[in-house]
Amino acid sequence: MEEEGDYGYDEEDAGVIIMPGEEPEIPEIKYEYLDHTADVQLHSWGKDLKESFEQVGTAMFGYMTTDYDSVQMKRVHEIQADGDDLESLLFHFLDEFLFLFSAEPCIIPRVIEITEFDLDNFHITAKGYGEPFEIGKHPQGTEVKAITYSAMQILDQKPEHDIFVVIDI
Amino acid sequence: MEEEGDYGYDEEDAGVIIMPGEEPEIPEIKYEYLDHTADVQLHSWGKDLKESFEQVGTAMFGYMTTDYDSVQMKRVHEIQADGDDLESLLFHFLDEFLFLFSAEPCIIPRVIEITEFDLDNFHITAKGYGEPFEIGKHPQGTEVKAITYSAMQILDQKPEHDIFVVIDI
Repeated sequence: MEEEGDYGYDEEDAGVIIMPGEEPEIPEIKYEYLDHTADVQLHSWGKDLKESFEQVGTAMFGYMTTDYDSVQMKRVHEIQADGDDLESLLFHFLDEFLFLFSAEPCIIPRVIEITEFDLDNFHITAKGYGEPFEIGKHPQGTEVKAITYSAMQILDQKPEHDIFVVIDI
Repeated sequence: MEEEGDYGYDEEDAGVIIMPGEEPEIPEIKYEYLDHTADVQLHSWGKDLKESFEQVGTAMFGYMTTDYDSVQMKRVHEIQADGDDLESLLFHFLDEFLFLFSAEPCIIPRVIEITEFDLDNFHITAKGYGEPFEIGKHPQGTEVKAITYSAMQILDQKPEHDIFVVIDI
């Protein structure tokens, strides 16, 4: 009969015991990790498409800090975005906000409010309410590097109006 | 003349000031983050191909903990790997070690030693010196999910003998 001991697994499965002094030498490090690529898909929804746009914008910024509620609304910024169709309008809307984050100072909005949502001319005016991002005050999440068109979906269907966007991180 | 103050940026660039009480309401969360995909490229080198193989194996395990030196060599495990060519031999070599990590108990080798490196029959026998992985003792890094053939390069050229492997994380 095999004994399981306190480990929660068969002692034997842990491998052949190495006696102290019998360990091999640890070799010099001859390896490195090259840049990784990664992406995450944002999914937002709303009672109308405007709300889904606002939500997906905050979803993007919510990824950049592990405590989004640490962001206070002390300043407001306005952005303008134009597109040739719904997809490019969404792309530029997010890209304009992402640009705010790469500016000096780097701005993180906590709330995004679209004040003009013109789907005939594919034009958006929006306000971002937030403050400069500060390491120490805002726990660092993962930096969003770029918006992509990959598998983008804008479903203007009642009652949910879903948006799916893949962002590079 | 503009004043810079203590911020290191133009006060004006921080946006229009929002007075207390004038912040918009924080909306209900209507978004979620869907699974992200990510990969990282391992690059190893050695005085010969055997050393490059050993190094790329430890590179893989070094990614799984943020303090690889916390891994003690208390147990030894032997693996066997076969391939049809150099690329598939490398793939299976790494995959056999990755399997050790998914076993019960989950084993993390600190040193890998190839005892048989047969390039005529594409066969490897190797030992992994390590111990069961324990959260708490070993600071968790990023889990390696799979080995890939993507952009795999095995450069058996003096003096460096480089290996490049992309792993899914």
